[in-house]
Amino acid sequence: MTAPPHEARPAGPGRALPDTQQGMRRRNLSRVMHTVSSEGPLSRAAVASRIGLTRAAVSTLVDELIRSGLLEELGPERPGRVGRPGSALAVSGHGPAGIGAEIGVDHLAVCAVDLRGEVRAKAVRYGTNRGRSPQPAVGELAALVRRVVDEAEAEGLWAAGLAVAVPGLVARDARTVVRAPNLDWHDTDLGALLPTDFPLAVGNEANFGALAELWLGEGTPRDFLHVSAEIGIGAAVVVDGRLLHGTRGFAGELGHVPVRPDGPDCACGGRGCLEQYAGEEAVLRAAGLEPGEDRVGLLAGRAADGDEDVRRALREAGEALGIALTGAVNLLDPEGVVLGGALAGLAPWLLPSLSEELARRTAGPACPVSVSRLGPEGPLLGAAHSVVRAVLDDPAGVAERA
Amino acid sequence: MTAPPHEARPAGPGRALPDTQQGMRRRNLSRVMHTVSSEGPLSRAAVASRIGLTRAAVSTLVDELIRSGLLEELGPERPGRVGRPGSALAVSGHGPAGIGAEIGVDHLAVCAVDLRGEVRAKAVRYGTNRGRSPQPAVGELAALVRRVVDEAEAEGLWAAGLAVAVPGLVARDARTVVRAPNLDWHDTDLGALLPTDFPLAVGNEANFGALAELWLGEGTPRDFLHVSAEIGIGAAVVVDGRLLHGTRGFAGELGHVPVRPDGPDCACGGRGCLEQYAGEEAVLRAAGLEPGEDRVGLLAGRAADGDEDVRRALREAGEALGIALTGAVNLLDPEGVVLGGALAGLAPWLLPSLSEELARRTAGPACPVSVSRLGPEGPLLGAAHSVVRAVLDDPAGVAERA
Repeated sequence: MTAPPHEARPAGPGRALPDTQQGMRRRNLSRVMHTVSSEGPLSRAAVASRIGLTRAAVSTLVDELIRSGLLEELGPERPGRVGRPGSALAVSGHGPAGIGAEIGVDHLAVCAVDLRGEVRAKAVRYGTNRGRSPQPAVGELAALVRRVVDEAEAEGLWAAGLAVAVPGLVARDARTVVRAPNLDWHDTDLGALLPTDFPLAVGNEANFGALAELWLGEGTPRDFLHVSAEIGIGAAVVVDGRLLHGTRGFAGELGHVPVRPDGPDCACGGRGCLEQYAGEEAVLRAAGLEPGEDRVGLLAGRAADGDEDVRRALREAGEALGIALTGAVNLLDPEGVVLGGALAGLAPWLLPSLSEELARRTAGPACPVSVSRLGPEGPLLGAAHSVVRAVLDDPAGVAERA
Repeated sequence: MTAPPHEARPAGPGRALPDTQQGMRRRNLSRVMHTVSSEGPLSRAAVASRIGLTRAAVSTLVDELIRSGLLEELGPERPGRVGRPGSALAVSGHGPAGIGAEIGVDHLAVCAVDLRGEVRAKAVRYGTNRGRSPQPAVGELAALVRRVVDEAEAEGLWAAGLAVAVPGLVARDARTVVRAPNLDWHDTDLGALLPTDFPLAVGNEANFGALAELWLGEGTPRDFLHVSAEIGIGAAVVVDGRLLHGTRGFAGELGHVPVRPDGPDCACGGRGCLEQYAGEEAVLRAAGLEPGEDRVGLLAGRAADGDEDVRRALREAGEALGIALTGAVNLLDPEGVVLGGALAGLAPWLLPSLSEELARRTAGPACPVSVSRLGPEGPLLGAAHSVVRAVLDDPAGVAERA
């Protein structure tokens, strides 16, 4: 789906930066930030030993990061030791914040995450956006963004960027929603509708969900396939810790992998696509239910109550998912498959037939399938964290903007 | 399939090298080599302006590369010009050479390619290797390698490394053939059977074929799916100019994407896999022919002669390829699909139904499908060039070994 510039540009600690003294300095600033972020609080000496630079070189970098408000000194550590006491460094809780937003079919949400990864402000508005024209929906989102940014500023933070998760395909400009069938939006330029004083990046919600899983999930592998669903089936391919975007930004369309080539026509132009068997509406139809507001809640509730029609519909959806995933696993050889979003809530009834189909069709050991613990929060958190990661990846870039 | 260390380690100009002064020097040596290789002959000043370093810095790097025998000076250029004449630099035709080898089902081949990309020596032996035990086959290959290395040395070259293409899955150690069904080899350590004085890397032939297409094909995109066939169907996924290996090195198993989930059993454990419809043996069976030595030649000859059974069998194989590729294209969003290896020779009869199926099942503009011009030479050339690329990616590394 799409490359939000925050996530796509640096691709690891400042990898795209020019290979000059200046570029090296920027990359090393990024190394210091990542090291303190993942292992801090740490002394300057500990940072130096971890990244393989001299203490003097690290001190210069650290001083610059403290001046920019990205690192903080927590005061002398182990004061009883001989020699000059080292001061423990931590990532700042008062510097830049990542603003994440989500335009869901049934809700709007915005949150602010600080460099430490903590959610510091949040606002949600429930109500359907399906068939709503973009202008009022985005206007409402802009008001939520303002509220969250104000709250964050009251806590001493400032917005380093806004990333917006949408349920649709986003162009590589990371502004334009090419199509979001469940909102009925086409070629919608969110950049024009959502003016901000800070960088904006729009991305597909399945992609942000996968990034959240990569960054926040426990024991998530660096090569995995993340499968989620709101109404359609979305997937994201993560290879060596990086999201695979595709040429047009449309990679991850697992929902349109043919499962039965002579099956029912699909809106995509194909036949027998996975979405015709495992999309929420297909499952509701197969279970003899009407699509309402809380479709996943309805299915999960009925399945938990032992409704045999619902259980059978979910079992068959699991089989179709297993067939489509067999192809994807054979093509990509991921370390694992993670079910996220709405699929996570239905996992108890989808997983047995899905795993059986996948195991039955695989020669060697089957690819393990796990269930996300982030659930429906994934895309929103992934969006906010993509901004935070961009700051860690190029701290000099954000300091210049501040 | 697998990561030959040559191709996998540097992944672009020395990207994995440490970010120190020393690492920067090595990366800049690589930049100079790549620039002269792709755009040379060039003067020092032209190299400096292209890579954005000072002329003095470039001269130091160039002198080191000349001393290592990786660059050559062609003598003064444009002697009529005012000022000190610049000497044009070219990649050396007398330095390191990449040795490529292929263990095919029906042949063994070895070649030596110099840094300029020219094939300088080659040896081929025809005869089936199917069911042959690894020892004699690899022994014969070793003799061909020695002959080619001797010939290359007689021309002033020296072997920088050997890359071997095999029709099977290779472990991430880039030595062990996990399984090559058409040779009937399992867990075969080629490193032990093929001792050399220079680095050895074993890789899957479809992967090397895709790399050849990437490096040598005309107008090949940087994101593409390369589909080839000897007896099975192999594919390789290239993303942003890099081969996707998968967790175990098994990515690209397009042949085992389910096309019809209730179709015939496949040796892989699945049912209705693409190989059951479009593998050479399936096509021969569908056309009522016996598998012989030159299967592709037989099919192509009969199809060209107007044999309706063969044409129908190839048309149906094309349809199955189109269905499997629809799923792959939806998942990966590549810029194009390239048919290589044996499939290239059958393209006139496969392509119409393949392209029609792909276009019919895709909502937007269909992913373009093209035919490789390298044909069956691809894997051998890709193997040799993978060694050459490794030298360009880290010239300091090879100079240390020389």
